Amino acid sequence: MIILGIDPGYAITGYGIIVKDKGNLKAVDYGVITTPAKAYFPLRLCDIYDSLSHLLKEFEPDCVAIEELFFSRNTTTAMGTAQARGVAVLAAAQAGKPVFEYTPLQVKVAVTGYGRAEKLQIQEMVRMLLKLRQQPKPDDAADALAVAICHAHSGNRLDSLAVGGYQ
Amino acid sequence: MIILGIDPGYAITGYGIIVKDKGNLKAVDYGVITTPAKAYFPLRLCDIYDSLSHLLKEFEPDCVAIEELFFSRNTTTAMGTAQARGVAVLAAAQAGKPVFEYTPLQVKVAVTGYGRAEKLQIQEMVRMLLKLRQQPKPDDAADALAVAICHAHSGNRLDSLAVGGYQ
Repeated sequence: MIILGIDPGYAITGYGIIVKDKGNLKAVDYGVITTPAKAYFPLRLCDIYDSLSHLLKEFEPDCVAIEELFFSRNTTTAMGTAQARGVAVLAAAQAGKPVFEYTPLQVKVAVTGYGRAEKLQIQEMVRMLLKLRQQPKPDDAADALAVAICHAHSGNRLDSLAVGGYQ
Repeated sequence: MIILGIDPGYAITGYGIIVKDKGNLKAVDYGVITTPAKAYFPLRLCDIYDSLSHLLKEFEPDCVAIEELFFSRNTTTAMGTAQARGVAVLAAAQAGKPVFEYTPLQVKVAVTGYGRAEKLQIQEMVRMLLKLRQQPKPDDAADALAVAICHAHSGNRLDSLAVGGYQ
């Protein structure tokens, strides 16, 4: 099973593609899609959509795993990030891929077994679980790999797809 | 000039198409795109994208006007609405249309001359400005027409397109 994990953002969208084969996990590719701060916002969304569509076509994942968004305050950043997430979810759905959503807590617990794990602990566990020589960089790519690992460990299948998440 | 106004939402997206001709405004079409509450969220985003892309193709607006989002609290609704907005902005940008953004306050002032106007006052002004027999319904369609009128009154042109709104 090939999983594309996404850490959505409008300035930086992290992605991580892993393969799960008989319980073994392997990183296939990871990185970030960046858009320039001074660019026109609608075109930044186009860039994110195009780049993700390209990854979906190139790696043909069986499914997509993406973090749910939680912000303590309603800020411009929160609104921008959510719009970028909408575009990422759209690209996955249009490519016919099932989209699984996980909370940051679910990702932490799945990767480290601990809900209060620090960023560095998560990155080290990602490195170990994927048998990488070094911790994946930048952070957003590591976070995307983490959400992909979360899905791999969840045992979630198509029939567990949450519906009506925003009623 | 043909303007497509959008009031974004994931359950209900309002749209309103108006023509500005020598200072006169006329409503061409308005309505709402609805998605079922129990549907799978990624497919709701696909529905919104497809419906807006269809409107953009059918009415060939010169530009798109859309409200900026403000929520007093960060809620599931806010996150869902922002994702739907991202998809709407993407559809417009991919269709090659410039996207102009207005705050709710800008829309109120443009339509009624008053920043604290009530919903009904706005709807009545939309009716009068577009010379409609009845107030446009539902509310989301009226709101979309209001943001289109706001753009028509703004005098904003391509060279005033805000860039880097989410740095």
